Amino acid sequence: MRIEIICTGDEVLTGKIVNTNFSYMSQKLEDVGLSVQWETTVGDNRVDLLEAFQLAGQRADAVVVNGGLGPTVDDLSQEIAAKAAGDELVLHEGWLARMAEMFRRRGRVMSVNNHKQAMLPSKAEMIDNPVGTACGFAIDIGKARFFFTPGVPRELRRMFEEQILPRLLARSGQETAIYLKRFHSYGLGESHADALLTGVEEIVPDGSVKLGFRAHYPQLETKLTVRGANMADIRAKLEPVVQEVRQRLGNFILAEDEQTLEGVVLTQLIARQATLAVVETFTGGQLAARLAPLPGAETVFRRGTVARSLAEISTAVGLADAPGTGALTSDVAETVARAARRQTGATHALAVLVDMEEGADRIDLSGTICLAIATEHDTVSRHSRLAGGREWVRLGAIEMGLDCLRRYLQGLPLYERTDFEKTDEKA
Amino acid sequence: MRIEIICTGDEVLTGKIVNTNFSYMSQKLEDVGLSVQWETTVGDNRVDLLEAFQLAGQRADAVVVNGGLGPTVDDLSQEIAAKAAGDELVLHEGWLARMAEMFRRRGRVMSVNNHKQAMLPSKAEMIDNPVGTACGFAIDIGKARFFFTPGVPRELRRMFEEQILPRLLARSGQETAIYLKRFHSYGLGESHADALLTGVEEIVPDGSVKLGFRAHYPQLETKLTVRGANMADIRAKLEPVVQEVRQRLGNFILAEDEQTLEGVVLTQLIARQATLAVVETFTGGQLAARLAPLPGAETVFRRGTVARSLAEISTAVGLADAPGTGALTSDVAETVARAARRQTGATHALAVLVDMEEGADRIDLSGTICLAIATEHDTVSRHSRLAGGREWVRLGAIEMGLDCLRRYLQGLPLYERTDFEKTDEKA
Repeated sequence: MRIEIICTGDEVLTGKIVNTNFSYMSQKLEDVGLSVQWETTVGDNRVDLLEAFQLAGQRADAVVVNGGLGPTVDDLSQEIAAKAAGDELVLHEGWLARMAEMFRRRGRVMSVNNHKQAMLPSKAEMIDNPVGTACGFAIDIGKARFFFTPGVPRELRRMFEEQILPRLLARSGQETAIYLKRFHSYGLGESHADALLTGVEEIVPDGSVKLGFRAHYPQLETKLTVRGANMADIRAKLEPVVQEVRQRLGNFILAEDEQTLEGVVLTQLIARQATLAVVETFTGGQLAARLAPLPGAETVFRRGTVARSLAEISTAVGLADAPGTGALTSDVAETVARAARRQTGATHALAVLVDMEEGADRIDLSGTICLAIATEHDTVSRHSRLAGGREWVRLGAIEMGLDCLRRYLQGLPLYERTDFEKTDEKA
Repeated sequence: MRIEIICTGDEVLTGKIVNTNFSYMSQKLEDVGLSVQWETTVGDNRVDLLEAFQLAGQRADAVVVNGGLGPTVDDLSQEIAAKAAGDELVLHEGWLARMAEMFRRRGRVMSVNNHKQAMLPSKAEMIDNPVGTACGFAIDIGKARFFFTPGVPRELRRMFEEQILPRLLARSGQETAIYLKRFHSYGLGESHADALLTGVEEIVPDGSVKLGFRAHYPQLETKLTVRGANMADIRAKLEPVVQEVRQRLGNFILAEDEQTLEGVVLTQLIARQATLAVVETFTGGQLAARLAPLPGAETVFRRGTVARSLAEISTAVGLADAPGTGALTSDVAETVARAARRQTGATHALAVLVDMEEGADRIDLSGTICLAIATEHDTVSRHSRLAGGREWVRLGAIEMGLDCLRRYLQGLPLYERTDFEKTDEKA
């Protein structure tokens, strides 16, 4: 089945808005084993909209149109859809009543402009929008079924997942049960993970499991798309593959599905009624900013301390004879972590200290990372060197700090060589 | 002149990469008074590429194609360009020599694959790429001039600004001198700023000044695009308009052109050899993260302290009888700021303390912000209420904190009602 997407609107066409609606839809389709073949962006312009609809209607089997369903005069999707389909607009009484009800509940008066949002082509199938005033609709243009969706991301996402995807899957004639299993890791590059997972698709011989990756440094997402007759069938197919992926990627898997690294760390700390102090230098508050704002962190996140120099950090955590006068070592990081824990009374302290190479930023600029975790009875540390310029090292240091805390809390070794490190030397 | 853009590549088409190259190019064109009329994205696929080139060649006067110039077999732009233009590929000896030289300088051996990057249509004009191995080129297809550019953002940006834009301006027959003047503000909504600036375009009666906006909460960018015969002409036209914009937007202008709010604050602090301590609660390290990592901040950023509770913040800055037991007021913020300054020995301290409404996140959830700035002889504060949910309040509090520090350092009043506040009450 050939699928096209048409994005509309001057704000997208002029680049005022980055088109994340498109990448969202395309990824969602990939996740269920469908693919977009062609994408078109046009402005709020009758001539271009009509031509885009007609061209896509000649080429595709299904077309998703995004945007142009609002109440203002530059929202033209219904009008041009009717024209392209050789149809005319009629008032959809059902949607008008739904809108009136929405406004009543919010204590507001519906504007006359909103009536326009209930004008649909007479042959269209209305598609519900439970979170906004722009309903979607479906209609045939040329040889394709067109699905019209709202431009507001929150409204698009709800409608796309609940209503458009099932319709597309049904039209594609695929088994409609599809499941996406995701693994998040830190420390493995895409090609390394791909090599480690050679052959896992073949564990299910009928080809219904597809392996994919999405790299967003420093994390890598490993995806398994599984198709089946129903969810029981999918679970049976998926189970041995998931076990195999978990074993091959091992301790590098930091979270699965909707979980995040910071969420896993927070859950672990909450489970043991722990509190946390964070100390950081080069990362400049970005490590604290991953954990402190999370819901549930109020009782866990005790204190974050940020400075640019080791000497200032040492003073801040109450170390009199500052270790900051010497070079950065794992011992220094351990001393700082212990002091931060004592000072704040937290059960756990994480110190991530970075010595960044001087000079103009360039791709091979490197940094030394010394991180340590202290508890009442225990102190552990890890030493590493990352290269790739300031921002690359900064992002890597934050991720390594959080991931080492995750490993510590889960009883896993802190040291496993990552693909991003220059060496795996211990300091 | 009708301009189209064609983006190529499976990673963009499948949504693995968000298409920021397109929004970048479209904005750059808008900034010089040109507009994109139509955008197409296709994958690394001969049939679709050829059709996309042919369709655009029938409709447009100029087409920019992005991507597909790499050394691997799925990079097809040169091949399909030649086919669409009825031309054939020939080796461009000049570019081959340039590539060989690049590899030599980096101490690496050029792969045979790279030869492919020097194969251009025989009628093409080669376009230099000073920062990569993918040269661009221009060729006529249908009635349009096509410009082929590399997909790597850094390479695209250099080539687009230095080589593609001047060629497009020349073809458009416009006066080629164009200048973009930008003002950055915090506290004004787009419609408010638009109303404040009514009529400024008419200060230059020939219509050569165009006003535009780009809102990215919490900041608003106000843009003046000016065309002229040459830069002297532009300067003469622009000067009275810039004066008028500065006067009408007044103290809300926090930076101009390439400057940033945090950069302006840092420059002010460096100029008076000052040092800074930052204390924050709900913003969770994100305030420190705006300033601490900046080049030049090593000597200025003394210490950042982050906690979730007022009591913990009070303890952290060395206040014995914690003000955190009572409600959050401007007095409390002033006490905390003074204590943070004393504790760290910094010349300036900024405290941004937020009392966020409890409950599930929703669009009308509000927060109280009390911020204070302390120096040796002076303490000032500002009180505010923002509504819009947790993330909205968090971003607003960070921006208001930095902007109040900017106002203090520039000798401007801290209090001026913003469009985002619920009230302008003083606490």
